Amino acid sequence: MTHFKTLATAAALMTLPSLAFAQDAPGFDEIGPYIMTTLLFCMAGFLVFFMAAGFAMLEGGLVRSKNVTMQMTKNIALYSIAAIMYWFMGFNLMYPGDFNGYVGSFFSPTVLDPVGVSAADAALDYASIGSDFFFQLVFVAATASIVSGALAERIKLWPFLVFVVVLTGVMYPISGSWKWGGGWLDAAGFQDFAGSTVVHSVGGWAALAGAIVLGPRIGKYGKDGKVHPMPGSNLALATLGTFILWLGWFGFNGGSQLAMGTVGDVSDVSRIFANTNMAAAAGAVTALILTQVLYKKPDLTMVLNGALAGLVSITAEPLAPSLFGALWIGAIGGVIVVFAVPMLDKFKIDDVVGAIPVHLLAGIWGTIAVTFYNSDATLMTQLTGIVAYGVFTFAASLVVWLILKAVLGIRVGEEEEITGLDMSELGMEAYPEFSKG
Amino acid sequence: MTHFKTLATAAALMTLPSLAFAQDAPGFDEIGPYIMTTLLFCMAGFLVFFMAAGFAMLEGGLVRSKNVTMQMTKNIALYSIAAIMYWFMGFNLMYPGDFNGYVGSFFSPTVLDPVGVSAADAALDYASIGSDFFFQLVFVAATASIVSGALAERIKLWPFLVFVVVLTGVMYPISGSWKWGGGWLDAAGFQDFAGSTVVHSVGGWAALAGAIVLGPRIGKYGKDGKVHPMPGSNLALATLGTFILWLGWFGFNGGSQLAMGTVGDVSDVSRIFANTNMAAAAGAVTALILTQVLYKKPDLTMVLNGALAGLVSITAEPLAPSLFGALWIGAIGGVIVVFAVPMLDKFKIDDVVGAIPVHLLAGIWGTIAVTFYNSDATLMTQLTGIVAYGVFTFAASLVVWLILKAVLGIRVGEEEEITGLDMSELGMEAYPEFSKG
Amino acid sequence: MTHFKTLATAAALMTLPSLAFAQDAPGFDEIGPYIMTTLLFCMAGFLVFFMAAGFAMLEGGLVRSKNVTMQMTKNIALYSIAAIMYWFMGFNLMYPGDFNGYVGSFFSPTVLDPVGVSAADAALDYASIGSDFFFQLVFVAATASIVSGALAERIKLWPFLVFVVVLTGVMYPISGSWKWGGGWLDAAGFQDFAGSTVVHSVGGWAALAGAIVLGPRIGKYGKDGKVHPMPGSNLALATLGTFILWLGWFGFNGGSQLAMGTVGDVSDVSRIFANTNMAAAAGAVTALILTQVLYKKPDLTMVLNGALAGLVSITAEPLAPSLFGALWIGAIGGVIVVFAVPMLDKFKIDDVVGAIPVHLLAGIWGTIAVTFYNSDATLMTQLTGIVAYGVFTFAASLVVWLILKAVLGIRVGEEEEITGLDMSELGMEAYPEFSKG
Repeated sequence: MTHFKTLATAAALMTLPSLAFAQDAPGFDEIGPYIMTTLLFCMAGFLVFFMAAGFAMLEGGLVRSKNVTMQMTKNIALYSIAAIMYWFMGFNLMYPGDFNGYVGSFFSPTVLDPVGVSAADAALDYASIGSDFFFQLVFVAATASIVSGALAERIKLWPFLVFVVVLTGVMYPISGSWKWGGGWLDAAGFQDFAGSTVVHSVGGWAALAGAIVLGPRIGKYGKDGKVHPMPGSNLALATLGTFILWLGWFGFNGGSQLAMGTVGDVSDVSRIFANTNMAAAAGAVTALILTQVLYKKPDLTMVLNGALAGLVSITAEPLAPSLFGALWIGAIGGVIVVFAVPMLDKFKIDDVVGAIPVHLLAGIWGTIAVTFYNSDATLMTQLTGIVAYGVFTFAASLVVWLILKAVLGIRVGEEEEITGLDMSELGMEAYPEFSKG
Repeated sequence: MTHFKTLATAAALMTLPSLAFAQDAPGFDEIGPYIMTTLLFCMAGFLVFFMAAGFAMLEGGLVRSKNVTMQMTKNIALYSIAAIMYWFMGFNLMYPGDFNGYVGSFFSPTVLDPVGVSAADAALDYASIGSDFFFQLVFVAATASIVSGALAERIKLWPFLVFVVVLTGVMYPISGSWKWGGGWLDAAGFQDFAGSTVVHSVGGWAALAGAIVLGPRIGKYGKDGKVHPMPGSNLALATLGTFILWLGWFGFNGGSQLAMGTVGDVSDVSRIFANTNMAAAAGAVTALILTQVLYKKPDLTMVLNGALAGLVSITAEPLAPSLFGALWIGAIGGVIVVFAVPMLDKFKIDDVVGAIPVHLLAGIWGTIAVTFYNSDATLMTQLTGIVAYGVFTFAASLVVWLILKAVLGIRVGEEEEITGLDMSELGMEAYPEFSKG
Repeated sequence: MTHFKTLATAAALMTLPSLAFAQDAPGFDEIGPYIMTTLLFCMAGFLVFFMAAGFAMLEGGLVRSKNVTMQMTKNIALYSIAAIMYWFMGFNLMYPGDFNGYVGSFFSPTVLDPVGVSAADAALDYASIGSDFFFQLVFVAATASIVSGALAERIKLWPFLVFVVVLTGVMYPISGSWKWGGGWLDAAGFQDFAGSTVVHSVGGWAALAGAIVLGPRIGKYGKDGKVHPMPGSNLALATLGTFILWLGWFGFNGGSQLAMGTVGDVSDVSRIFANTNMAAAAGAVTALILTQVLYKKPDLTMVLNGALAGLVSITAEPLAPSLFGALWIGAIGGVIVVFAVPMLDKFKIDDVVGAIPVHLLAGIWGTIAVTFYNSDATLMTQLTGIVAYGVFTFAASLVVWLILKAVLGIRVGEEEEITGLDMSELGMEAYPEFSKG
């Protein structure tokens, strides 16, 4: 398309298309909502896309320097695979076609609206297919990112990516359809606005199954019963990742309003922004204070995870609560992280970045917290949803991990793990010039 | 909310809400401006939010590696505290309630519009409360970020955070109300479009008071009268931070148009984008050329600060100037930085990242520069505003810093400072594996 | 402007401007498209702006640590110079004024719409000048960024910046006008939606000419005929840069729809988002698989460049292809990178970051690929465009590089190069504390 700049002269204007739409086409009262909601999905979509970078930086900062190249490779690859699989089958598996309440259409790649779709052919009460597809796609990628963090520093690249294929092409779309595809859990009244359960817990369950099958990193849990901390190699990067995730969450939660073309909808989007921000802030401050009180020293990694846990906690219901509601819901997220991280170590479940406390446990909490502010939610239906997603995802993940373990092997050799995955698996260091001390 | 994807079949469409709004609700002529302005605040808000990451990266890159974990902790904590305090009291203290021109309502937490507010109940000539609150909140956080940079590498965490509580909950809202709350300075005709004075100078004055009370870092000013440079540990990170701040500034200045629902308003927003970009570019190029001429070697940290000074300079009036106006206003910002950084060292005021030249001095310059392009501004009223904000903020900050010094102590011990705050205060290094040379 | 927050009381509302526009001003049917398209340019513009940070991080991560400060300096300086030159002459040289099909107006700085432009004076069928100028300006900066990566680690700062002045002020605007200014190539039917040729190949040709004149880095090509790899110093940073570029590309391609005010346009923008994302994903996955197959080890730098090559490949026609079309077009981009990087080494053309394969070769491919999905494009016109841009840009660049070489010298001394440009040219290390091993 020709990048014409604005031509100020009347003569020039005459050569451009006239303003005919005002006469013979639907006006803004009819098309405005479609335009605004499509824009919402595009905007929220690029924000959530950027969360892929956030996860990569968070994880790259929390692993040891000998595994950073691998963590980067996994993150860009998982996003790319998610994009392809969700097009190839995920989107239409998740959303109703020949729908029975449990699953959509298999092996039906996404087809976009035609180029320059007319108002008559567009879903004027919603948004363009392209914008909706893009928005949903970045969600599934987030789910996969959660897994990569927990299993870092020991899992082989290709088996991990095969798991991502299954997760993003099959597992997530099937369980996602139960709620967001209008399936049985949606019919049952289960509430999950932007995905504390549908996205975050699902990622957390998949990660938990993987962490159990994979086992902890060598040396993490000593024979003396002690936990040996393995500090992240770059906390500036981890902090950047957290800020990027926080930024992306405005799209994650705000976009889940799914409409921006009325006074009520756009106002709700802004309400969600304010609540999302508050929950993150409350989670961070709570973790800061708690680690000061418990350990006498504030712990930055806990503060970062506290902010993320606050975000996950508010994700199931970012609209209904007041700002004070968002504050205490997020704060409890922060509490969960501070207590759950050492608890996981008691079970010798080695979660490198704290993904399970942040995404699974705070996700469960957030899903329950819906009942305090949204009268459509009952504790029973919320627990039903939590259990249904948990059982399905954990069981399916376990099966996939065990098959992968049997067929390909999922863990690098002992020597490779000690050397670091960057040199042993990829032959490329992330920071080749900096001496390690 | 159910994430329905676009359903192309007519049958499916029938199950969705009909386009009833076109008949019984106000049309886009009435609600369009509200929707667009609310969107402007959401969009500008997330851009300015991201400046929190920009400040963190800039400061994390300019401190020495032994203080990076602390700098990250301070930055995420100060943003979180600002978010909570501004909700708890700042917003309603800043904006008129029972208003007398000097201060709004104390201890009145922010209340958002109800969920799904109707057009009849919304402020159709403005925007949703949530969007406005979010937008204003990210501004106050920026003010606090300015302080954290100047006082880095020696201030204790908790006293700093207590200062942030007071700054964001009381000081900034009170002085902010004088202009943006429609108070006495606004009535007097003082002009400050997006906050060269209201935000940046205020942060700079608070930092200056803190730097004086705190004193310079050990070894910065030798007994021989020489200034010992303490180079930043990661200039890639500092550059990233600068680019993020530059990005955020489009929201900072563009959002301050406070409206996007008319031809004139949206055009003005774009005009502000172009001018903001130009001023930053001019500040950077000026600092590049000046450091080449003065020191024979271009100085990257000066170029980064030159860009930021250009941005601060144009912030008081990013709309009225022509692009050439933005160029020379920003260029003088660059000049100020190059000359003011060594000048501060003469006074032995140790400002780790150059926050005082960038935010205070270029802020003053920008506020004066308004008079060249905005005929509503007189030099007298601009100087009145500069002095009023300066006296109030500097005095109030000085009192708070002195109280904090007396009660809690604000400076880490000598040994702790030499060891670095990361190990001594937090027990956690930012780059634990990289040998320091 | 006074930052009034929403005032809920009726009394307060009365003091604000009434909703008069609904009666005496054009309604949204007339102004909506202008508002939406201006917003599109602002939004796409800030995304493309952020690509400047993406290029800086990518390049900063792929050079050796002794050249990082220089690479940062070049990147922030080139963006700033592009901003100034494009205002000073580029924009009006590129877009038709006294237009003859080959070039616009010389030495005619950009003039924005007046403040608060009225609907009667605005280009209601397009967008504000400020938004268009800003959007076009960030494109020219991207072109210059491409050059800086290829020539890294050996080119002098000032001659490089002089080249940027000529490229952004003269060369790019002249050749750009042939297509996007509605010039002879546009008239001939040449198709290049968002600039595979107009932007990316042009940057690539300029880089190629520079790389030939400049010669390879010392030690890159041994006397034994072997290629000595010089690994990048920070692959986390390079990955971040790639993600930022991917993010920015949504603005790059999406904004090139140049309209967002109709159902068809906004739907097309979203279609472009989905296709752009798909092509990047396909490029990354292809490079991942290919490097595994060819070298038995996946190569992260190839995966990053594969994603970028996918993005460049889809840039000439991101709208017309189906998602499957975007997939295979992007995948071939990934193939090109994997084979072209070692091929360039055969010719001893030392391209530090792989900019020539990514931007020039994938750009040519993308321009040809238009013919598969856009019936307005013929292979003949596409090849004509590719050759015209190639001959002009390569020849003009060669002349400028040779003049610069003769007059100023373009290459640092041997000793300076071995020491690293940071210490020898700038006296400032990027990572002064980290021991190099």
